[in-house]
Amino acid sequence: MTPEPAAKAVSLRETLRAADGPVTLLGYDPGSRPLAPGSKAKALKALASTGEELAAQQEMLYAGGASGDPRRVLLVLQGTDTSGKDGVVSHVVGQVGPAGVRITSFKKPTAEEAAHHFLWRIRRALPPAGLIGVFNRSHYEDVLVTRVHQSIDDAAWAERIADINAFERQLVESGTVLLKCFLHISYTEQRKRLLARLDDPTKYWKFNPADIDERAYWSDYQAAYAAAIAATSTEHAPWYIVPSDTKWYRNWAISQLLRDALLGMELSYPKADFDIEAARARLQPPF
Amino acid sequence: MTPEPAAKAVSLRETLRAADGPVTLLGYDPGSRPLAPGSKAKALKALASTGEELAAQQEMLYAGGASGDPRRVLLVLQGTDTSGKDGVVSHVVGQVGPAGVRITSFKKPTAEEAAHHFLWRIRRALPPAGLIGVFNRSHYEDVLVTRVHQSIDDAAWAERIADINAFERQLVESGTVLLKCFLHISYTEQRKRLLARLDDPTKYWKFNPADIDERAYWSDYQAAYAAAIAATSTEHAPWYIVPSDTKWYRNWAISQLLRDALLGMELSYPKADFDIEAARARLQPPF
Repeated sequence: MTPEPAAKAVSLRETLRAADGPVTLLGYDPGSRPLAPGSKAKALKALASTGEELAAQQEMLYAGGASGDPRRVLLVLQGTDTSGKDGVVSHVVGQVGPAGVRITSFKKPTAEEAAHHFLWRIRRALPPAGLIGVFNRSHYEDVLVTRVHQSIDDAAWAERIADINAFERQLVESGTVLLKCFLHISYTEQRKRLLARLDDPTKYWKFNPADIDERAYWSDYQAAYAAAIAATSTEHAPWYIVPSDTKWYRNWAISQLLRDALLGMELSYPKADFDIEAARARLQPPF
Repeated sequence: MTPEPAAKAVSLRETLRAADGPVTLLGYDPGSRPLAPGSKAKALKALASTGEELAAQQEMLYAGGASGDPRRVLLVLQGTDTSGKDGVVSHVVGQVGPAGVRITSFKKPTAEEAAHHFLWRIRRALPPAGLIGVFNRSHYEDVLVTRVHQSIDDAAWAERIADINAFERQLVESGTVLLKCFLHISYTEQRKRLLARLDDPTKYWKFNPADIDERAYWSDYQAAYAAAIAATSTEHAPWYIVPSDTKWYRNWAISQLLRDALLGMELSYPKADFDIEAARARLQPPF
């Protein structure tokens, strides 16, 4: 499988990367499909082929982890309800070997979690060396929901932002490649997806009437996301704003970003740390 | 996807289930392929189609777990080095959504683990409700390696066996469906697979010269497996002895066993616990 030309790959990263400085999400069209393959069919084909690359890269990452390489990957997925975080886990992350990934879905903190610093449960869920960790929601919830519902004041918010930037810098310094994706959908698309869940009995369990209550805070959430993204999009841990009204585009784009993140690690299989010929000699019949 | 006739499915379970009473592994041919599809090509096709059933069943299991159903599945994979545990994780478990599985590979206990009862680390790795847990090696290592290398005496071994039976009974009583598979390969097949790793630089990391040392204890391991299987194959948690010299047969057979275990749970999607019409009415434009 030959990787696509690096020029194009780099350019998707650059295209989706959050702009430096203040962010307004109104400037990012959730229905756009920058650099997309020419059609849905082509995107699905590209996704499958990127999947093979992802699987091959992940195997090398895992082999390295088993042999002392401390590096790992952490994919952070954020976005409003129905933005497609579960879909990315299933269609993108599902393309690599299940033993090589560790997925954590962060819900409302438990009593024990809430009694600790907000990064406590996050640190416990970090992937070990060699694995691809996936956070379905993350520490960013603690600067989003809280800001929208004003359960923390501006000073506490700023302190948490500083904590997050320090935490992510530590992660990167200790060998974690961080890939932070904001799945950006429109107000209209969310309505469509919520209504679709009501039309499908196999999706009722995903529906919570409280999600409708939260939808009333849409603009506040968009502003909170924009503020958090602007404050935490750093050189070592930039944010990517992924237009996500089109599901196949979202999956294709994130698979490309993840592939590029892995390629950037320049992984290779560990060399043998034992005498191959001696081992082969011992394994001759009748032994 | 129409499930295959139940008669055939039941019959694979019955065929591979460890016989009651003393077990000698010499009586089970690792190269046999009982009830296999007629060819490798047909088996791969059947595996893909069972994969779709597995994915559909797992989604229902997950939905149930998210809605208060306490049930879960635990697939225990045991077998000597190169027997194909990683292959099953990748080719069988890899067919379901990655968020729905929790895989734990048990290695040599850490100092902290060794300082606790041998089931301590096992209990910590149990899958939550709605998930399929996979143990790549398990609590059975503690009655195998220890017996072969005589680090525990007969009385301690018997005590551990009793602990395991009590533990597994508790698991089943609290809603876990246990599926215990012994991947049975031959002495010759292990040599072939170890030598193959030495021929493939992408597999060096999987090779450990200590595995050759352990191979010298082959007969002791077979006897230890037989004793453990005989002592822990219970009505609620039977062992399946899966002939594993043929990789496609092993994958096909375990996918069938897992599928049957899920079908046996008679899963269904949770009903809506909210007013669907009221939710739909709230979601009309312009809201």
